[in-house]
Amino acid sequence: MAGVEQTRLISVIGAGQAPPEVLAQAREVGRLLALAGWGVVTGGLGGVMEAVLEGAATAGGLTMGILPGGDPRVANPWCRVVIPSGMGQARNVLVVQTGSAAIAISGGAGTLSEIGHALKLGRPVAGLGSWNLPGVFQAPDPESAVKHVLSRLPDDPGRS
Amino acid sequence: MAGVEQTRLISVIGAGQAPPEVLAQAREVGRLLALAGWGVVTGGLGGVMEAVLEGAATAGGLTMGILPGGDPRVANPWCRVVIPSGMGQARNVLVVQTGSAAIAISGGAGTLSEIGHALKLGRPVAGLGSWNLPGVFQAPDPESAVKHVLSRLPDDPGRS
Amino acid sequence: MAGVEQTRLISVIGAGQAPPEVLAQAREVGRLLALAGWGVVTGGLGGVMEAVLEGAATAGGLTMGILPGGDPRVANPWCRVVIPSGMGQARNVLVVQTGSAAIAISGGAGTLSEIGHALKLGRPVAGLGSWNLPGVFQAPDPESAVKHVLSRLPDDPGRS
Amino acid sequence: MAGVEQTRLISVIGAGQAPPEVLAQAREVGRLLALAGWGVVTGGLGGVMEAVLEGAATAGGLTMGILPGGDPRVANPWCRVVIPSGMGQARNVLVVQTGSAAIAISGGAGTLSEIGHALKLGRPVAGLGSWNLPGVFQAPDPESAVKHVLSRLPDDPGRS
Repeated sequence: MAGVEQTRLISVIGAGQAPPEVLAQAREVGRLLALAGWGVVTGGLGGVMEAVLEGAATAGGLTMGILPGGDPRVANPWCRVVIPSGMGQARNVLVVQTGSAAIAISGGAGTLSEIGHALKLGRPVAGLGSWNLPGVFQAPDPESAVKHVLSRLPDDPGRS
Repeated sequence: MAGVEQTRLISVIGAGQAPPEVLAQAREVGRLLALAGWGVVTGGLGGVMEAVLEGAATAGGLTMGILPGGDPRVANPWCRVVIPSGMGQARNVLVVQTGSAAIAISGGAGTLSEIGHALKLGRPVAGLGSWNLPGVFQAPDPESAVKHVLSRLPDDPGRS
Repeated sequence: MAGVEQTRLISVIGAGQAPPEVLAQAREVGRLLALAGWGVVTGGLGGVMEAVLEGAATAGGLTMGILPGGDPRVANPWCRVVIPSGMGQARNVLVVQTGSAAIAISGGAGTLSEIGHALKLGRPVAGLGSWNLPGVFQAPDPESAVKHVLSRLPDDPGRS
Repeated sequence: MAGVEQTRLISVIGAGQAPPEVLAQAREVGRLLALAGWGVVTGGLGGVMEAVLEGAATAGGLTMGILPGGDPRVANPWCRVVIPSGMGQARNVLVVQTGSAAIAISGGAGTLSEIGHALKLGRPVAGLGSWNLPGVFQAPDPESAVKHVLSRLPDDPGRS
């Protein structure tokens, strides 16, 4: 069938502010996902959301931010595609719905809500220094986190 | 000012299926909230959501269900007011936004997402056999759960 | 089956600011709906949304406001139940989903979006000095508007 | 500042099924938008939504679909980026929020709701054989529609 290839996306969720070593991990997660041919969708703000998109964009991956507010100008500078949802916290649901799996890096209550939504949707979830919960693979490093979720994706011929 | 009294509501979140002793706890939570003058808002389906509304309605409290789907007829029979949101999991955000505090009773990933949203919003949260997380008061019984959240409400003269 | 009676609701949509004669019409629509045993759901703010709830509450009907923002204190004083959705314009969808039919009174672009959603959902829609569109019954007065939508409700034994 | 260029997007809304001449117009709208350097966001399904993305993708533009359901596989084959919102009709709000302006091509009640949301947000709106409403520029052909909305965009240095 004629058409274009649908971009495959992984949701990366995490702290809006984080120390340098966490941001470095996020950058590496983004880079590895892009090198493996995946785009990255986040909440579009700062901290982990910005670092992971920097890593992904620099390695050539598609980067997306789904914002809580309605103004696209508050998105971090590494978002190539911005959805200014205007839906407040409900945007967390959209971030998780849009990816085929989720990787959580550090993060507080907002990240917790996203992990809950991801598990409810049956998405593979890996965590890097994030919430230690049943169903969340505790990854020792970025490479393990990426490897884990990519190896657990449902076989999906319709979304090649 | 002329007007009516706005109904004060507490969000009760929890498992869609649960054993009899958990349902009994939920019923007691609903009864205690209603006796204290509060209405109860839930996700409108079965299990804990149904039992807590049964307890609340029987004690004269206002009962509300915010459904994931668009058909009001799937609401449990103890919902006096039904919001058939048609928004899927985003209804979890609405359930938590609508109450002044949250009580979690048992529950899985959906409840986890709701706890995350409640903590993010700064709502007091108590748990009864639910997720053991920082910020969630582990209540030994229904009375302690209700007491905990009601004692931690922000002083709000505008919503008497 | 044991349970409580689910409140039947009609969505009333319209201008956030309106001249006295339009507000009087809105009050009368609310009064007639309440006398016919229906509750009223609106967007919870001023103008038509406030006047229709005043009419409904004064006549003993249940009144509901679904707000775009997250602060329940901005609801008009005639809302007995408030959903502070925090979802911006997406709350328009919720207002329409929650009622069995819609009555539009005056109103601008927001009301237009709600009429579109109501028609898409197959709800009966009546207008009083509102948008003149195919599928919207142009009612000459409040009584005709209420009569029109109540006579066109689907026969629904499950939501008596 | 380091970063990537944010993709500029126009919302195209319209009928899910349409005769060949309408689909040809939609294809031309997509082609013209892409040639002018814009991406296109739609509701992701068939008819106008598919034709406009075919025109845009073929001319090298970024194509996006925001679906009402949660399954990305139902998106039309011309969507490069898919948001499977799972939010039902509330996705109409997202489609309009995401573009800087809207072009309506034919269409029924769903399109009407989107025009309402776009006008409420102050977006420029052009129509091609769609709803004839105040605030909607009635374009005689695809070129006029595209020209109209692009010439009325707010000057926005932050979203170049």
